[in-house]
Amino acid sequence: MLKTFLGIDPGFHVTGYAIIKKEDKRSFLIDCGYLQMSTQKHLSERVGIFHDFFEEKIKDHSITDVVLETSFLYKNAQTFLKLGYLRGILYLLANKNNLNLIEFAPREIKQAVTGFGGASKEQVASAVLRMFPKLSEVKITAKNDVTDALAVCMCGLWQR
Amino acid sequence: MLKTFLGIDPGFHVTGYAIIKKEDKRSFLIDCGYLQMSTQKHLSERVGIFHDFFEEKIKDHSITDVVLETSFLYKNAQTFLKLGYLRGILYLLANKNNLNLIEFAPREIKQAVTGFGGASKEQVASAVLRMFPKLSEVKITAKNDVTDALAVCMCGLWQR
Repeated sequence: MLKTFLGIDPGFHVTGYAIIKKEDKRSFLIDCGYLQMSTQKHLSERVGIFHDFFEEKIKDHSITDVVLETSFLYKNAQTFLKLGYLRGILYLLANKNNLNLIEFAPREIKQAVTGFGGASKEQVASAVLRMFPKLSEVKITAKNDVTDALAVCMCGLWQR
Repeated sequence: MLKTFLGIDPGFHVTGYAIIKKEDKRSFLIDCGYLQMSTQKHLSERVGIFHDFFEEKIKDHSITDVVLETSFLYKNAQTFLKLGYLRGILYLLANKNNLNLIEFAPREIKQAVTGFGGASKEQVASAVLRMFPKLSEVKITAKNDVTDALAVCMCGLWQR
């Protein structure tokens, strides 16, 4: 069975993403990177850019599953609310393209990737980079955003 | 100058809306009502229904301005986050259809409509119904959701 997972770590400034294809028992990293949006742009413009960027990724790679981290209340309630805008866009894209939408709690993701639910962002990053050693060679500007998205994506891949 | 305002009071169960057209100094209530979505449906399905419902309203009535109430943190953080999903959809629709997006704080809306920033939902409803007396004759099931949306819409209309 062929499945293609899109893992996303959304943000209004930087959004990390990773795409992994699963074919029977083998899996391949197809694409990973980040979307950076200027904070100078109006929020609704950024929502539009975010929508179009992921709509294209979904169509180009025939995504079957979108994987997200469950969000918990931030210190800043307005940041938390605005993160909801981007999650809403992903819910819409999942609905319009008949994708499965899978969510994991932050602890589950850290536990799955590092073996420790209280791992730091750096520990997650180094665990992910051990699995994809070629990534370390590439200079990734928004490294933690990309490794977070990879960690989320792999949780989708590993789920029973 | 012709402008058509769509005021929305979003919710995952009931969303009130009102559409008012402004032509020079006259204004007309074009449509008002509510969208009810079954809580049995998955969240992403409701996001899709919400998107399509308002996309149609925007196209049918050549909406120029979307008016929303700023949201503040609810007691329930998850409800607050999920409200963000619907707001995100409205931001997307505003972006895709080149609409102005106007937001007012709850106090501003109550102040504008009732003259008192701390007014109750019922006080807002009765102030709105005094302005649109014909509405009182109609049995409105989700009355407060509709009157809230009307109040929001009128703030858009009245702004300088």
